[in-house]
Amino acid sequence: MLKGKHLIDPMDFSLIELEEIFELSDRIVSNPENFLDVCKGKLLATLFYEPSTRTRFSFEAAMLRLGGQIIGFSEPNSSSASKGESISDTIRTVACYADIAVMRHPKEGAPRVAAMNSDIPVINAGDGGHQHPTQTLTDLITIRAAKGKLTGLKIGLCGDLMFGRTVHSLIKALSRYEGNEFILISPKELQVPSYIKSEVLEKNNIKYKEVERLEEVMEEIDILYMTRVQKERFFNEEDYIRLKDSYILDKTKMDMASQDLIVMHPLPRVNEIAVEVDKDPRAWYFKQAKYGMFARMALICKLLGVDE
Amino acid sequence: MLKGKHLIDPMDFSLIELEEIFELSDRIVSNPENFLDVCKGKLLATLFYEPSTRTRFSFEAAMLRLGGQIIGFSEPNSSSASKGESISDTIRTVACYADIAVMRHPKEGAPRVAAMNSDIPVINAGDGGHQHPTQTLTDLITIRAAKGKLTGLKIGLCGDLMFGRTVHSLIKALSRYEGNEFILISPKELQVPSYIKSEVLEKNNIKYKEVERLEEVMEEIDILYMTRVQKERFFNEEDYIRLKDSYILDKTKMDMASQDLIVMHPLPRVNEIAVEVDKDPRAWYFKQAKYGMFARMALICKLLGVDE
Amino acid sequence: MLKGKHLIDPMDFSLIELEEIFELSDRIVSNPENFLDVCKGKLLATLFYEPSTRTRFSFEAAMLRLGGQIIGFSEPNSSSASKGESISDTIRTVACYADIAVMRHPKEGAPRVAAMNSDIPVINAGDGGHQHPTQTLTDLITIRAAKGKLTGLKIGLCGDLMFGRTVHSLIKALSRYEGNEFILISPKELQVPSYIKSEVLEKNNIKYKEVERLEEVMEEIDILYMTRVQKERFFNEEDYIRLKDSYILDKTKMDMASQDLIVMHPLPRVNEIAVEVDKDPRAWYFKQAKYGMFARMALICKLLGVDE
Repeated sequence: MLKGKHLIDPMDFSLIELEEIFELSDRIVSNPENFLDVCKGKLLATLFYEPSTRTRFSFEAAMLRLGGQIIGFSEPNSSSASKGESISDTIRTVACYADIAVMRHPKEGAPRVAAMNSDIPVINAGDGGHQHPTQTLTDLITIRAAKGKLTGLKIGLCGDLMFGRTVHSLIKALSRYEGNEFILISPKELQVPSYIKSEVLEKNNIKYKEVERLEEVMEEIDILYMTRVQKERFFNEEDYIRLKDSYILDKTKMDMASQDLIVMHPLPRVNEIAVEVDKDPRAWYFKQAKYGMFARMALICKLLGVDE
Repeated sequence: MLKGKHLIDPMDFSLIELEEIFELSDRIVSNPENFLDVCKGKLLATLFYEPSTRTRFSFEAAMLRLGGQIIGFSEPNSSSASKGESISDTIRTVACYADIAVMRHPKEGAPRVAAMNSDIPVINAGDGGHQHPTQTLTDLITIRAAKGKLTGLKIGLCGDLMFGRTVHSLIKALSRYEGNEFILISPKELQVPSYIKSEVLEKNNIKYKEVERLEEVMEEIDILYMTRVQKERFFNEEDYIRLKDSYILDKTKMDMASQDLIVMHPLPRVNEIAVEVDKDPRAWYFKQAKYGMFARMALICKLLGVDE
Repeated sequence: MLKGKHLIDPMDFSLIELEEIFELSDRIVSNPENFLDVCKGKLLATLFYEPSTRTRFSFEAAMLRLGGQIIGFSEPNSSSASKGESISDTIRTVACYADIAVMRHPKEGAPRVAAMNSDIPVINAGDGGHQHPTQTLTDLITIRAAKGKLTGLKIGLCGDLMFGRTVHSLIKALSRYEGNEFILISPKELQVPSYIKSEVLEKNNIKYKEVERLEEVMEEIDILYMTRVQKERFFNEEDYIRLKDSYILDKTKMDMASQDLIVMHPLPRVNEIAVEVDKDPRAWYFKQAKYGMFARMALICKLLGVDE
C-alpha cells in the first residue's frame, strides 16, 4: 500500500512497492484512455523553488492526463518563501488547498522537512545535488519497457560519474536486482565515489569494471546511460584534450554496439550525443522522457490511492 | 442576488448577501463532491500584479475544485501592463476570455477601476495596504464555523493594530453583528487608528478596551486574532525590549485561556506564534486557510450565479 | 485536411483550408457549449520565450474552453532554454508530454525550426518582428463576422505601415480575395515597404492608394485597421508635430465615416484611439479580441483533428 506515502529518496520504496508502480504504469501505457478521470477533483501542487521546466512539465502533464488539476509556482521569487515563511508552514498551508505536492528545492533535505510536516504526500523532484527519485523511477521503467526485465543486464554508465546524482541513484536501484553488472566509463578524476564501490557494489558482490574510454566497451553492453562531462571538471587541459571525444557518442561508436543496445540520457543533452544518433532505433532518450510521464502518472495514482 | 456583482471593499455586501454566501459555504464544506462540476466551462482570470502565492493558490484551488479553469499571471513583468496598457483596457480584454477575474495590485483603487470597466465580476485580492475583502470573508466564515455564530463574542486582536488592514476590516465587519466586544492588544504607538474607535466602535456603542499586554486578557477572550509586530514600527528600542514577548503567543499564554478559545492568524506568520502552539486544538490558523478556500468557492459560485 | 499540420506563416493555409476554419469557428461562435469536451484528454504546451500575456491568454482560454488542458511557461528564464538546450531537443521533449504546441520566440524562424523537428502540430504565436499568423486569422474571422464576406471591401490601414508585421500579413491575406481595395494611411517615411506594393498589390492588379491623413479617407472606407505610430519612428520633429493628430482616431473623425464602418486594432492600444470611441458600436477592437479566441479554438480543433 503506497497510499499516503512520500517519495523523498530513490530507495524509499521496497521492491514490492516498486513492482506495484511498474504494474500500474504498464496498464497506463497500454490504455491511457482508462485513466482520463481517475484523479478528477484532485489537485497537485507543484512547488518549484528552482526552475526545472522539463521535470515540471512531466509532473503537470502526468496529473492533467489523469484528469487532475494543478496549482503551483515555477520560480522562487513568486512564492511566499520570499516572505521568510518556513518550509513547514508552507507545506501545511499548501495541504489546505492540494491533495499531493511535488517539491523542487535548491537546498538538500528541504523536501524531507516538508514531508515530515505534511498531511498530504510529498514527492521530491530534486533537492540540490542530492536526490531526484522520480528520475530513477523513470530510468527503471524505461529499462523494464525496453528489456522486459531489470535483472541480468550489463549496464554502461558514461560521463561524469563522480558528481552525477542520477548515476549514483541508478547504480543503487539496479543493485537491488539479480545479476546486473556495471561498466563505469569515465576519466580517472571523475570516477564513481569510492563509498558506492565499497558500500553498494562490493558489499553485494556485484560485478563491475572501470574504463576510461567508451570505445573499449561498446560491444559488450546492453544499456548505455550517457551523462555529460563538463570541461571544468577535468584536472588538466591535457587530459581533457586526450579524452573528450571518448565521451561523445556518435555513429561510429554506435556501429560497434549490439543491435539490442539501448541508449539512455536524462536530458537535456548538450553535445555528448551527436544528433546523428537520434535516428538510430536504439536511441531511447526521448522515449525515456515519455516513460517519465507514465512513471509519474503511476506514482501519483498510487500515492493518492486512486489506481483504477 | 449576488450574480454579476464585484467584491472590492469588505463592506460591499449586505448582511443578507453575506448570509447567502455563508449558507452556500456550509453546503460546500459538507458535500464538496456535489460541487465538482458547477463551474464547468467557466474561466477565472488571476491577475496578480504583485506576487502572493498563498492568495493565488486559494483562489485557483477554489475555482479548480468547482470544475472551472484558470488563466492568469503571478508577476507584473509577465503582463501586458509592462507595455503601458491601462487597467481599463486590460480588464476589457480579459473579459473577452474569462468569466470572472481576481486582481491583486500594488496600487490602491486599481481593482475598483477594473470593476468600473468590466463586464465580468471582479474580486479584489488585495490593493496595496488598502483592502483585502476575501480575507475578511475568510475570517467571518472561520469564526462562524468555530463558534456557530457571529454575535456576542469577545474578540482579542493582537499586534500591530495601526497598520494592519486585516484587523481594521475585521473590526468593521464584526461591528455589524450584535453584542460583540473588542479587546485591542498592542503597544501604545501601534493602537487602532482613532477614526476606527470614533466612527466604527463608539458611534455604534460597541464595547472595547485597549491593553498593552496579551497576558492581561488571555483568560477572558473567545477569539484571539494574532498579527505580527515589526520591530521597525516601535518608536524606541526600550519599548521594544520591554514589550516584544507580550506579542508572542506561546504555551504559557495558552494555558491561561479558555478551552473554547480559538486562535486565528492571516498567515504567513514569522515568530508571533510559537510552533509549540500548533498542536493545540485551539490553534485554528491552518483551518482558517482551509476555510479561506471554501469562502472563495462560495463567493465565485455566487458571483457567477452557478450555486448548485 | 488540416490535422497534423503546423501554422508558421500566415500564408501556410490554402483558401480552402481557411474556409474549413471559418466554417468551424462559425459553429463554435453559435454553440460554444457543443465544444466543451472536444479536446478532453488533450494537452496544449504554451512555450513563450518572450512574454505576451494577451496572446497567451487567448490560446489558453481557447484550449480550456474546448475541455483541453495546458502546460507551459510564460518567460524565458523559467525554461530549459537557459540550460542551452536546442529548440529541436526542446520540442521533441515537449512532444512527449503534449499534443500540440504554441511557440512565441524573440528569434525569427525559431517556430519553423521547432515545426521541422516536431511530431505534434506547432503554432507560431509570433517570432520577433516576423510573423504572427493567428493575428491574421483573427483579423480575417473578425472581418467575416462583421461584413459577412472577405471580398469587395475597401480597407483602410492606418499608422506605421513600414514596420507593422500585422498590417503586412493582413494585406497579403486579403489580397487573395476578389475585389478588395486598400487605402494606406501613414506618414511618408512609414509607408508600406515597396516589395509589398510591387509583389503583392501591383502584381495582382489590386487597387490601392496612399494618403497622409486619416481625415481624407474616413468617408469612403468599410474597415479601418488602426495601429500605433511611435514618435521615434519619425524622421524629424516637425513632421511629427504636423501629422501626429492625423493618426489618432477620435469622435470627430468617426463622425465623418459610414455607419457600416468597423474599427479594428490588434491591441494593446496606447493613445491612437481615443477612449471616447469605445462606446461607438462601430468600435470592433474588443470584439476582435473575442473573435481571436474563437479563431484559436477552431484552429486547435482542426490541427488536432477533433472537430466535433
